Amino acid sequence: MPYRAPVEDYRFIFENVVDMAKVAGTERFADATPDMTDAILTELGRMAEEVLYPVQRNGDLTSAVLENGIVRTSPGYAEAFRSMAEGGWLAVSASQEHGGMGLPIAMNTAFNEMVAGTCMALGLCPLLTQGQIEALEHHASDELKEMYLPRLISGEWTGTMNLTEPGAGSDVGALKSKAEPNGDGTYSVSGQKIFITWGDHDFGGNVCHLVLARLPDGVPGTKGISLFMVPKFLPNADGSLGERNSLGVVSLEHKLGIHGSPTCVMQFDGAKGWLVGKEHKGMAAMFTMMNNARLGVGTQGVGIAEGAYQHALAYAQEREQMGTIINHADVRRMLLTMKADTFAARALVLDCSVAIDMSTATNEDQCKARAALLTPISKAFSTDVGIAVAELGVQVHGGMGFIEETGAAQFSRDVRITAIYEGTNGIQAMDLVGRKMMDGGDAAFALLDEIEAHAEQARLVLPELAEPVWQATETLREAVEWMVAQSDMNERFAGCVPFLTAFGRVLGGHYHLKAAMAEGGKGTRTKLARFYVNRLLPQFGGLLEHARAGSADLYDITNEELCA
Amino acid sequence: MPYRAPVEDYRFIFENVVDMAKVAGTERFADATPDMTDAILTELGRMAEEVLYPVQRNGDLTSAVLENGIVRTSPGYAEAFRSMAEGGWLAVSASQEHGGMGLPIAMNTAFNEMVAGTCMALGLCPLLTQGQIEALEHHASDELKEMYLPRLISGEWTGTMNLTEPGAGSDVGALKSKAEPNGDGTYSVSGQKIFITWGDHDFGGNVCHLVLARLPDGVPGTKGISLFMVPKFLPNADGSLGERNSLGVVSLEHKLGIHGSPTCVMQFDGAKGWLVGKEHKGMAAMFTMMNNARLGVGTQGVGIAEGAYQHALAYAQEREQMGTIINHADVRRMLLTMKADTFAARALVLDCSVAIDMSTATNEDQCKARAALLTPISKAFSTDVGIAVAELGVQVHGGMGFIEETGAAQFSRDVRITAIYEGTNGIQAMDLVGRKMMDGGDAAFALLDEIEAHAEQARLVLPELAEPVWQATETLREAVEWMVAQSDMNERFAGCVPFLTAFGRVLGGHYHLKAAMAEGGKGTRTKLARFYVNRLLPQFGGLLEHARAGSADLYDITNEELCA
Repeated sequence: MPYRAPVEDYRFIFENVVDMAKVAGTERFADATPDMTDAILTELGRMAEEVLYPVQRNGDLTSAVLENGIVRTSPGYAEAFRSMAEGGWLAVSASQEHGGMGLPIAMNTAFNEMVAGTCMALGLCPLLTQGQIEALEHHASDELKEMYLPRLISGEWTGTMNLTEPGAGSDVGALKSKAEPNGDGTYSVSGQKIFITWGDHDFGGNVCHLVLARLPDGVPGTKGISLFMVPKFLPNADGSLGERNSLGVVSLEHKLGIHGSPTCVMQFDGAKGWLVGKEHKGMAAMFTMMNNARLGVGTQGVGIAEGAYQHALAYAQEREQMGTIINHADVRRMLLTMKADTFAARALVLDCSVAIDMSTATNEDQCKARAALLTPISKAFSTDVGIAVAELGVQVHGGMGFIEETGAAQFSRDVRITAIYEGTNGIQAMDLVGRKMMDGGDAAFALLDEIEAHAEQARLVLPELAEPVWQATETLREAVEWMVAQSDMNERFAGCVPFLTAFGRVLGGHYHLKAAMAEGGKGTRTKLARFYVNRLLPQFGGLLEHARAGSADLYDITNEELCA
Repeated sequence: MPYRAPVEDYRFIFENVVDMAKVAGTERFADATPDMTDAILTELGRMAEEVLYPVQRNGDLTSAVLENGIVRTSPGYAEAFRSMAEGGWLAVSASQEHGGMGLPIAMNTAFNEMVAGTCMALGLCPLLTQGQIEALEHHASDELKEMYLPRLISGEWTGTMNLTEPGAGSDVGALKSKAEPNGDGTYSVSGQKIFITWGDHDFGGNVCHLVLARLPDGVPGTKGISLFMVPKFLPNADGSLGERNSLGVVSLEHKLGIHGSPTCVMQFDGAKGWLVGKEHKGMAAMFTMMNNARLGVGTQGVGIAEGAYQHALAYAQEREQMGTIINHADVRRMLLTMKADTFAARALVLDCSVAIDMSTATNEDQCKARAALLTPISKAFSTDVGIAVAELGVQVHGGMGFIEETGAAQFSRDVRITAIYEGTNGIQAMDLVGRKMMDGGDAAFALLDEIEAHAEQARLVLPELAEPVWQATETLREAVEWMVAQSDMNERFAGCVPFLTAFGRVLGGHYHLKAAMAEGGKGTRTKLARFYVNRLLPQFGGLLEHARAGSADLYDITNEELCA
């Protein structure tokens, strides 16, 4: 049951759902014509199918291991990584100035999805490297850019993000790592970092750590944090690898999933580092990485959903139990749920990608606000979809789903982390109702206006689909109004997770409706839209009741009563 | 973070929610007075806390292994099993005639929950043995009863269920195992069985296999299947172990969870067996096992939910991130969801237990119909709750939830099988809307009448809780009416899973309302009821829209379109 890259779905969504032509219409992305993006999608799909898919199980069965301080990666990973690098895929959206393709983020999303759908554990290495490239492009000095960007873009070197410490997870500002000036423009970085994805490997080249640490005069909390480039090997002036820096991997974590991805505890003992951006402005630089990483993680959810769907579909076509099980109503319900939600999540991450691309191309505030609004929804809704779809994939397999050899469980174990890292889905929801609604809801209302305007047009052709989408949007609008009316943030936070899910559900309805309209209300996509609107969209009602429940009941029960 | 058995919750539910006094009021269960059940709950809780909880992680870290055809179990399992047996816990509800305690099934449910909450993998051994005891009590000859029951009840021997074959899972009737008469009243049983839980172990004694196989004159399908007792060792007349039977473990499965439970591929090569029940009536006998096993599996969901809740709660009380995380609104939302749903699922399995006990005690059709109706809901809803609660437990842990050492992931991996075995949750939902509504919905309507009558009383005291429960019940009633009006079963099956979930949601509202009323609308349970009614109950609307969607859209999309 080989993986088939969803190239056709990308083409369709680009053309009919997220208006990729708008992106190609800008000067910045004038190259991204349909011919160009088609060709790239096809090549990318081939790479995922032929290079990554074959190593998907390897990493699960043979985890990365730490041997004498060196990380040995899973069989075939090094070759697959080199192959991705040689294809030039590692920095689809990085600037051409340093060797990137300079393509829209939307194309990078295609890369991230197909990589996650075929080998998510390995795919984390380029994902983290992408984030580092972006942070350096925006914040690093020219010297650092010249040294690091070409090598990260080519895949000669890879990058990591070092934020978390044992006492500083969601609360990054609590971190204790320190940096002291060496007097020569460099710094000595010390501290322990945990959960460092791809903190080391045996692919060759350098491993470049971006590390958050506090300078001696840094105030407590997030405002006293600076960002440093701390490479595993100190590069010589010509970029060749010099001496080993004072840092190392202490241990690897034993995880539920993504076994092939080495999750490292890193120790920095006065390691030599270079400041990235300004002193005490590390969080701003880190947010550059994090925002796109959040979109990237949401995209992993889509990738796993697609992989799990194809895998379950293949089983359902073969398995005979009172006839082939694909013909049983409840199995079809599961498969259609998987397919309909995967489409919704894919359209969502692409809508967010296009908003980012339009921000980059036009620098318009409206585009930025839309991108900022869609980012936490993309991250949380799409990873929730990934988890739910992978779970359904296990269920479609029946007893075989619980047996590791079938691979259904691996999707489910691998994708589980996506609801946690890069800010838990709870943090995303708090971001959505907090920071992303500091505009009084303007960005949200603009999006809802757009959805309703489309539904009003669609009503003439597909009233039975357009009307429920319009109604759901209107109910969501009331919930947004309720949210922005709460001056006490805790009132918003008390229902932010179901609120975000409902927002995703409504957006999904909008994308399905657009898809159905694009084929004139007749065809496969219309049938899928009907399934989604009749069966999945109605969840919005219960979710939005929950969203508006307020915080009183959460604190009415005391901690002692929780323990009773 | 040690496990604390939910003894107090059992006492409360017995007294206030499921009317255990009614059971104790029957002649059959006159011994089950509150004093008696209290004492047993306390002892049982102590056993789970002191004997089982300490070996919970052992089985996960050190799986059962097959060595030279012999299964070696996880460290400490044999001792823990012996300790359970010595306490007399293995057959709480088995007849006193053969050494059981003769207590209501409700007490056995307490046993099953506490065992699953502390060591589900080991707990499967007594769970399967209970089912076998029950099948033998109802269907075996006196000779077989005399030989097997006392030894199964004492735990000297253990029992298994051998149904599934590679080509016969949900479709049991497709099985190929054969039995041939030996002419001396015994049979030669041959075939391969898969997914055989606790198919072998090193606890000592005998392993007694109940095997479904077809006699030479058995017709194809379920009507030609007979049930046989096929022991690992052929017992001598005095019950001592005689020669080894021609059966063995071929291999163990590598599973997502319950690593400590050996899941065996069994091979029977002309193994000597004894008929249980009548020829070709094996399915009827097997259903005796399966019905209570379904309740038992639902109860496992509750047990894991309780274990995962306590585990996450302990973490949330200790973990500091911008204050202790238990005080964050979204963490409280998760913890309260876990607690409220665990209560609902526990009350549900106890309601079902009491219905079974009343059936046993009174033999009244109404009790039987209620038990039959509640069984698939108990199995599917409570295991869905177990899975969802364990997932939330992982999420409460943040990044640590993905690290196996914390144990949060184990709950999630272990409980996943409960939605699959003993009939997938899809099969349960089909049973609910099919077989269990062949009465035209009478049993369901009777239950809904009861819920509405209670809500009407409660309206005077707690209108803000009683009214939503009444409204949800009324919407569920309309959905039941819709279901029974569909003569084409596939129309029912097309939405049976969300229908079952909604049924469970409404029942949960009913139980919470009863709990709140029992404390006069003031106190912890009322606060929890308010959380449930305001935040979780509203899901019924979306679920019931889905439930009534019908099958047309599922088949409107062709198999080719699913693959597109």
